[in-house]
Amino acid sequence: MAPKRLRLVTIVAETILEERITRELVELGATGFTVTESHGRGSRGMRTGDIPGDSVRIEVVVATSVADAIVERLRDAYFPHYAVIAWLTDVDVVRGEKYVR
Amino acid sequence: MAPKRLRLVTIVAETILEERITRELVELGATGFTVTESHGRGSRGMRTGDIPGDSVRIEVVVATSVADAIVERLRDAYFPHYAVIAWLTDVDVVRGEKYVR
Amino acid sequence: MAPKRLRLVTIVAETILEERITRELVELGATGFTVTESHGRGSRGMRTGDIPGDSVRIEVVVATSVADAIVERLRDAYFPHYAVIAWLTDVDVVRGEKYVR
Repeated sequence: MAPKRLRLVTIVAETILEERITRELVELGATGFTVTESHGRGSRGMRTGDIPGDSVRIEVVVATSVADAIVERLRDAYFPHYAVIAWLTDVDVVRGEKYVR
Repeated sequence: MAPKRLRLVTIVAETILEERITRELVELGATGFTVTESHGRGSRGMRTGDIPGDSVRIEVVVATSVADAIVERLRDAYFPHYAVIAWLTDVDVVRGEKYVR
Repeated sequence: MAPKRLRLVTIVAETILEERITRELVELGATGFTVTESHGRGSRGMRTGDIPGDSVRIEVVVATSVADAIVERLRDAYFPHYAVIAWLTDVDVVRGEKYVR
């Protein structure tokens, strides 16, 4: 069972966006996601650090094509309007078939 | 002090497995671990998103050989029975000797 | 809008260091940061796992030169005195200009 190279997409967004973003991730092809509560400061200088859990950090492991579709959706529907950031990392997974529908 | 290339293993599992998995990580050679509470949805369609903290995200930075042993253990003892996922990432660390026993 | 290759720096430290470290990250060039509460066990055998939220996991996405400056600061001002660990990962971001001042 050789490891499979996939993409980890990490998205940090306001908590209020969690349900909408995770629903769209599944629509775009993700088979699962992991959410952790976070806080921090964004590049707009917005201070969100006073209340723990006021932002969410959403992770999905997906095929490259799905990662590209997620980035496109973020770019079109979120980046212009919300303090959302995202980054992509190469990851190796075991049981890679779990991440592809 | 040149950076050292190691492997970050990220494991997402039911909270009830935290103690057992972290004990095994140390037995297999990890010198430390980081746990964050999370929630999410897995590839089995299991919905765990209603209660924050109902899963854990465990991170360990280890040598490649230890990462391979961890993957083998997950594959043999966890993947067939539990909704556990894991991914591996290349990372650079300073003070690499802290991560090797 | 091509993705830009940057560095993700992940720092795990005692909660009491959060404010000082994040202030220094911004001074060194970070445009934002994400903090999640965590617990765990470090390489000094220190057990911190009994109280959730007793450590913090700080993430910043920055240019390589800023990542290098952060590592140097950690090495000089934190590693000798505190149970701080850090690792660096290559990441691709969209809207890379958000991460560079």
